[in-house]
Amino acid sequence: MSAGTRAPIGATTPWHGGLTGTAGLWPLPGGVCAVEGVRAAGVPAGLKPSGAPDLALVDAGAVATAAGVQTRNAVRAAPVRLTERHLADGRARAILLNAGSANVCTGPEGLALAAQSAAEVAGHLGCAAGDVLVASTGVIGEPIPAVPLLAGIPRVVTALSPAGGSDAADAIRTTDTTVKEAAARVGDGQGSCVVGGLAKGSGMIAPGMATMLAVLTTDAVLEPADAGDLLAEAVEATFNRISVDGCMSTNDAVLLLATGTAAAPPSRAALADGLTAVCGALAEDIVRDGEGAHRLVRLAVRGALSDGEALAVARAVADSALVRTAVAGGDPNWGRVIGAVGAAPAVVDPEQVTIAFGDVVVCADGVAAAFDRAEAAAALAGPDVSLAVDLGLGEGAATLLTCDLTHDYVTINAEYTT
Amino acid sequence: MSAGTRAPIGATTPWHGGLTGTAGLWPLPGGVCAVEGVRAAGVPAGLKPSGAPDLALVDAGAVATAAGVQTRNAVRAAPVRLTERHLADGRARAILLNAGSANVCTGPEGLALAAQSAAEVAGHLGCAAGDVLVASTGVIGEPIPAVPLLAGIPRVVTALSPAGGSDAADAIRTTDTTVKEAAARVGDGQGSCVVGGLAKGSGMIAPGMATMLAVLTTDAVLEPADAGDLLAEAVEATFNRISVDGCMSTNDAVLLLATGTAAAPPSRAALADGLTAVCGALAEDIVRDGEGAHRLVRLAVRGALSDGEALAVARAVADSALVRTAVAGGDPNWGRVIGAVGAAPAVVDPEQVTIAFGDVVVCADGVAAAFDRAEAAAALAGPDVSLAVDLGLGEGAATLLTCDLTHDYVTINAEYTT
Repeated sequence: MSAGTRAPIGATTPWHGGLTGTAGLWPLPGGVCAVEGVRAAGVPAGLKPSGAPDLALVDAGAVATAAGVQTRNAVRAAPVRLTERHLADGRARAILLNAGSANVCTGPEGLALAAQSAAEVAGHLGCAAGDVLVASTGVIGEPIPAVPLLAGIPRVVTALSPAGGSDAADAIRTTDTTVKEAAARVGDGQGSCVVGGLAKGSGMIAPGMATMLAVLTTDAVLEPADAGDLLAEAVEATFNRISVDGCMSTNDAVLLLATGTAAAPPSRAALADGLTAVCGALAEDIVRDGEGAHRLVRLAVRGALSDGEALAVARAVADSALVRTAVAGGDPNWGRVIGAVGAAPAVVDPEQVTIAFGDVVVCADGVAAAFDRAEAAAALAGPDVSLAVDLGLGEGAATLLTCDLTHDYVTINAEYTT
Repeated sequence: MSAGTRAPIGATTPWHGGLTGTAGLWPLPGGVCAVEGVRAAGVPAGLKPSGAPDLALVDAGAVATAAGVQTRNAVRAAPVRLTERHLADGRARAILLNAGSANVCTGPEGLALAAQSAAEVAGHLGCAAGDVLVASTGVIGEPIPAVPLLAGIPRVVTALSPAGGSDAADAIRTTDTTVKEAAARVGDGQGSCVVGGLAKGSGMIAPGMATMLAVLTTDAVLEPADAGDLLAEAVEATFNRISVDGCMSTNDAVLLLATGTAAAPPSRAALADGLTAVCGALAEDIVRDGEGAHRLVRLAVRGALSDGEALAVARAVADSALVRTAVAGGDPNWGRVIGAVGAAPAVVDPEQVTIAFGDVVVCADGVAAAFDRAEAAAALAGPDVSLAVDLGLGEGAATLLTCDLTHDYVTINAEYTT
C-alpha cells in the first residue's frame, strides 16, 4: 500500500483525551479538590535543601474506593510496597506524598518510616493506617530524614483545605518547573461526575510506565475492581504513552480516590473518557515540562501490522537520542527517524515508509521526498512539533508524546544529583 | 548469596581481547596492511563538503576468503544489500568504502550506483565485480553524487599502497575524531598469522550490532563458512558489546578478507583470539571516540541468572541517559544505576544488588554502602571509569563498553546534520 492511496499524514496528530479534545467534558479549576469534599495541602517540611514545600496530603474526607497503578521496575520504593499493601482492600481515605527523597533502597528502616508516616496521618484524620497511601519522589538511596517528615505531618494535616490542590501539586515537584493539575466535569444523558488530578514528573519519564506520581480524585460511584480497571485503561492510554528519556523510575505511582458522592453519575464510558482526558492533560504537561525540553513532539505511527507494532516503532523513534537531538536543533533529519524505525521490533518494509514533519512529507515510500527544506525546518521551529510515520503495511496505529534532547537536559542531569 | 561471600567487585573489569590483554599476541603497526600483500588507500573524491579524504579501498591482492557481519536494521543501505550478494560465494578481493553519504533510502538508483562502483573497481583490479564489496557511511537519505564517486575510483586504485592502511582508515571518518587501526601477530605452538583491521564509528553506536564500518584482514587459511563463524564470534564479543547512544545504524558492516598466505598458520583457537583482540581494540577505540564522550565506561555485570540476563542488565545501564549524564558530571549517583538495573528484562532481587564505581562499593545488598563520597567521585574523575554491578543471584556475567553523555554529544547532533 503506497502512501498515495491513504489520507495525507502529518496534518493532525491525535492525542488521547486532553481537556479540550473530549466530547461531553467541561474543564474545571481546582485540580484534585475540584471533587466535592476533597481537601489538599502542601507545606515545607525541610526535606528539600531549598526549603521549598515538599510534603503534600490529599484527603478524600472519608474512606473512598481506591486504586493504583505503580512502577513495574524490579527495584520498588518503600512507599510503593506499602501502598500496594494498603490498596489490597480497594479502600483508602488519604494520600501522603513527599519530594526530596524517593525512599528507595533504604532497607527495613525505609519501609518502617513509610508505615509510621501513614499511621501518623491516620491518627490525625481518625481513620485506619491501612487507609492512608504514601508516595515519594526524589534522590534514590538517600533516606528520608524521619524527624522533619514526622514533624511535618501535623502541619500538613492542619493546612488541609478545599483550595489546596495547587499547594499539594507544588510540593511534590522535583526538577519540574511547572505545577501540574487538571480537572473536569464529564457527563452524558445519564448524569455527570467530576474528575480531578495532580501530577509531578519531568525526568526518568519512560516507556513501560510513565515515571511520575499522580493523584486522581472523582466523586463517581465505583467498586474497587472497576476503579482498578478504569484507572489501568486510562494510564495505558496516557501516562504509558509518553517518554522523556526512556528511563523507568522506582517510584511511579498513579493513585485514584473515588468518593462516590456524585448524586447522578454518568455511564462508565463517560467516566472512562473523563479519567483518560484528565490523565492525558497531566501526561502532556509532564512531557512539555520534560527535563531540558524546549519542544513537545507529537509522534503518530500508523500503517503497522498491529497497534502493538505501531507502539514499538513509536517507542523506538521516541527513545532515539539522535532523533531527539535533531528536533532540538530544528533539523528535519528524517534519516535518523527511518534508522530508528528500522531498528524497532516490528515488521518494517523500508520501501513503504513515509515520514512527515508537521504536514511536510520528507520521505515517501522509503526515499527522500521532493520537499522544501525551509518549510520542513519551519515545521520544527515551534514549541509543538508533529512527527508522523506511516509504515504502509496495515491498520495498526499508536501515538506517543516525547520531547527534544537539549543541552539543558545534560546540564540538569550532569550537574545536579537528582 | 550476599556480596560479602564473593570476590570483591569493581577492582578489575575485564574487556574482551584488546591488543595488550591477550596471550600469544604481538601488536603490529600497519592496520589492514599488516597482512602481507594487502594494499590500501584513501583519497579525497569530493563527497565530503570539507574536501577531506572520503574514498577508501582495501585490496587483498588476490581473491580471498571473505565474510561479513552487517546491520540487523530493517532499513538497510544499498551497499549493505550489494555486499550481502557479493559475499554469497564466500570470496572477495577488495572493499570500496566511502564517507559523505550512507547511500540508504536512495531507491534503485542508489543500488545501481553501488553496483556500478564495484564494477569500476573490478575493472581496474582485473577481478569480477562480484569480488568487490562496498560500504558507505554518512548522512541517510542523500544520494552519493555519482560523478565524483566514479571519478575517484581510478585515483584510489592508483594510490593503493602497502603503507596505505591509515589513509584508508582516515578517509572513512565522519564525526570520528581519531583514525582507528589495529593489527597483531597471533601465534601458538602450531604456527602464527597476522590479523589487521581498521574501523570508523562514533555516533549511532548501538546494541544489537555496533554501528560502524570495519575491515579486517588476515593471512590465515580459512574456508568461507569458518571465516563467517570466526567473524561472527569475534563481533559478538566486541562490536556487539559497545554502546554510545543506543541507536542502530542502517549501514553497519564488519568485513573480513582472509588471504590464506600464511606459511604456518596457528590453531583456530589462536586465530579466534587474535581476531577478537583486534576487533576488541577497534571497538574500544570507537567508544573512546564516541560522539562528545569524555569518559569511557567499562561496565561489568555479574551474578545474573544467565549471561544473557547479565547482558540485558548491562545494556539497560549503558543505555540509561540518566546514568550516562551522571558519569559526565562525575557524580556517583548509584540510584540511577539501580533504577536502570531494576528496569532491565532480567530477574533482579533489589536486596541482592551491589554496585561499585572503580573499587568503591556504593551500594551493598540494595542499600547505600558506607562509602566516602570524595573517593567515589575520584573513581569517576578520569577518562577511564569502571562500573560494576553484582546481582548476587547466579553465575551469569557480561561486560560492555559505553561512554558518558555530554553537552558535546548534544552539540554534535543538534547543530549538525550527521
